[in-house]
Amino acid sequence: MLRYELQARDGSARAGVLHTQRGSIPTPTFMPVGTRGSVKALTPEQVAATGAGIVLGNAYHLALRPGAELVARLGGLHAMCRWSGPMLTDSGGFQVFSLASLRQVSEQGVEFRDPRSGDKHLLSPEISMQQQQLLGADIIMAFDECPEGPCGRDRARDAMERSLRWLGRCVEAWRSDACALFGIVQGAGYADLRQESLDRTVAFDLPGYALGGFSVGEPKQVMEGLLPGLAPRLPEDRPRYLMGVGKPEDLLLGVQSGIDMFDCVMPTRNARNASLFTRWGSLRIRNARHREDPRPLEAGCPCLACAGGFSRAFLRHLCLEKEILFLTLATHHNLTYYQGLMRVLRAAIVAGELSACASRLQAEWAAGLPD
Amino acid sequence: MLRYELQARDGSARAGVLHTQRGSIPTPTFMPVGTRGSVKALTPEQVAATGAGIVLGNAYHLALRPGAELVARLGGLHAMCRWSGPMLTDSGGFQVFSLASLRQVSEQGVEFRDPRSGDKHLLSPEISMQQQQLLGADIIMAFDECPEGPCGRDRARDAMERSLRWLGRCVEAWRSDACALFGIVQGAGYADLRQESLDRTVAFDLPGYALGGFSVGEPKQVMEGLLPGLAPRLPEDRPRYLMGVGKPEDLLLGVQSGIDMFDCVMPTRNARNASLFTRWGSLRIRNARHREDPRPLEAGCPCLACAGGFSRAFLRHLCLEKEILFLTLATHHNLTYYQGLMRVLRAAIVAGELSACASRLQAEWAAGLPD
Repeated sequence: MLRYELQARDGSARAGVLHTQRGSIPTPTFMPVGTRGSVKALTPEQVAATGAGIVLGNAYHLALRPGAELVARLGGLHAMCRWSGPMLTDSGGFQVFSLASLRQVSEQGVEFRDPRSGDKHLLSPEISMQQQQLLGADIIMAFDECPEGPCGRDRARDAMERSLRWLGRCVEAWRSDACALFGIVQGAGYADLRQESLDRTVAFDLPGYALGGFSVGEPKQVMEGLLPGLAPRLPEDRPRYLMGVGKPEDLLLGVQSGIDMFDCVMPTRNARNASLFTRWGSLRIRNARHREDPRPLEAGCPCLACAGGFSRAFLRHLCLEKEILFLTLATHHNLTYYQGLMRVLRAAIVAGELSACASRLQAEWAAGLPD
Repeated sequence: MLRYELQARDGSARAGVLHTQRGSIPTPTFMPVGTRGSVKALTPEQVAATGAGIVLGNAYHLALRPGAELVARLGGLHAMCRWSGPMLTDSGGFQVFSLASLRQVSEQGVEFRDPRSGDKHLLSPEISMQQQQLLGADIIMAFDECPEGPCGRDRARDAMERSLRWLGRCVEAWRSDACALFGIVQGAGYADLRQESLDRTVAFDLPGYALGGFSVGEPKQVMEGLLPGLAPRLPEDRPRYLMGVGKPEDLLLGVQSGIDMFDCVMPTRNARNASLFTRWGSLRIRNARHREDPRPLEAGCPCLACAGGFSRAFLRHLCLEKEILFLTLATHHNLTYYQGLMRVLRAAIVAGELSACASRLQAEWAAGLPD
């Protein structure tokens, strides 16, 4: 049911369309994160108004609460969350290793305690596939072992080998064509392991592939060193997803390397922490320099805050007073910035001008907010 | 600039239109509270979509932060908050007595410390008029002394006399026809004091009148006993505002007594506490009975939550997970309920069927939520 259509290239970068049963998404695309079924602080209509076409949920969180069976009884994730476009669920491979307490990893899977309820749970490739197919996302992710970075070579190889064995079990447990399974390349910071993981993952001939295990605590140079060599070796006719990345400059590097899909909590989380993205880099709205500023965050920005006529001064007031409206306006602004960045990069690829575009973006980010 | 047009009567109840420079509002009307310039958890467009025509701000809070002069430099409250309809500011007479610490009341005014910054401030009739005219609301409220209830007769008389002396100073300091000044009737729970306060307040011949000092801690029977005799004695050709009230049944009593305008934090605050208004009384969304319920909060409700197709089960999940979206949907629902109630009451007055309407509403509220 999922198909990637390549439309243009510029170096390793590609512009295309991800065709899904719930609509077609121009790529490269950024997917806002709605971990528990809601992109924080926004209604689904507001999410769509940022320009987002596909959103992400997290099967680990949703299976704990409200429960995958309950979501299925409510008609699945789309019906429950009131999002009619395509959705992707992460398996929670990363979360179970980073959030769960008292976890015991075996070849069977991961036994862990829910830090909230204290209840014991098992997550395995089979259980994750069942959960994600119950949730009913258009794209589901393999359940893998994602070591936190940086990690040693033995640990990286073990996790990679286990992820590949688990991928085989995911493929066995994958029943629904409506849910396109993506495999995940691991291998931490080791170029040869990454390459081997990629080749053996691609051998499963899946609807799409992801690069996992980046932005999990390792130095930034690791991804910068690996990505340009790695992404272009993924199959041309499948979508390529860089998981959990990242800052605007990371998205640029990903796009330049040939990535089609991104997700990250950064625009939403930073918004709630009063850090707002602009073409001139980040704007800290709490700063006293904005106290009397009648201007929008960024002139011409089509978001609820800027196009809605809210001044920096009023946004600062809302932020300092902890008004909920600030969270909504700030989140809408940041997600609109990310979607706009993706549109600019896509247009540059189509026009064959990605290199000039990248230089301009980097110069503006470095310049900082003008007075 | 402000004019009240009486359109229909049913007993003491009245249907009319409040004509302002920023639009005409059918009455009786409920004004959502946007204390610090934002009706909590909603964008101005979402507030308007609930059916609200006029919203309230609080001059005490706004003068402390961001400051009345700053608001004026940003173009006034409407421009800053992006609300183009009429607005009313409360003087903060109630807040300065209930929230401020270390207050010293003199004939001059109230000296108090801002509990947040520790800074010392003076609030007086003259200062309050200046603040409210800087903010630029369409309706501004007299700065009065509002004793917390229940209070003794001497205290009630002293506060009433002082409020009347202060009203004279408010009228003296009132410069702008664009800001219609409302006087406030005090007198606590004493019928004769209330009557005297009303007569002497009305003698100032102001654009509108409010009943203050209800719902400030006194037993419920006090207002029930006084309101039906008090409100009808206000001048027919001026709008009548019952401050800070209340529950749906209190609004019904107010409307039956001839009140035109209400404000209360109840719909917005209760929403954030997961208590949702329905025609069958309140619905506690955290309750386990809603865990798997695919139905909307109330069938036919035009709010973002109900008309948006959000199930009770999903709303419960959002609430338990402390998702910000819950606050938005719940607030929108409760305010929509309040606006719908006002529309139903207004239509019943126009049709001369308020008594039958009241019986039906009371029976439904008492019935409780059906399975």
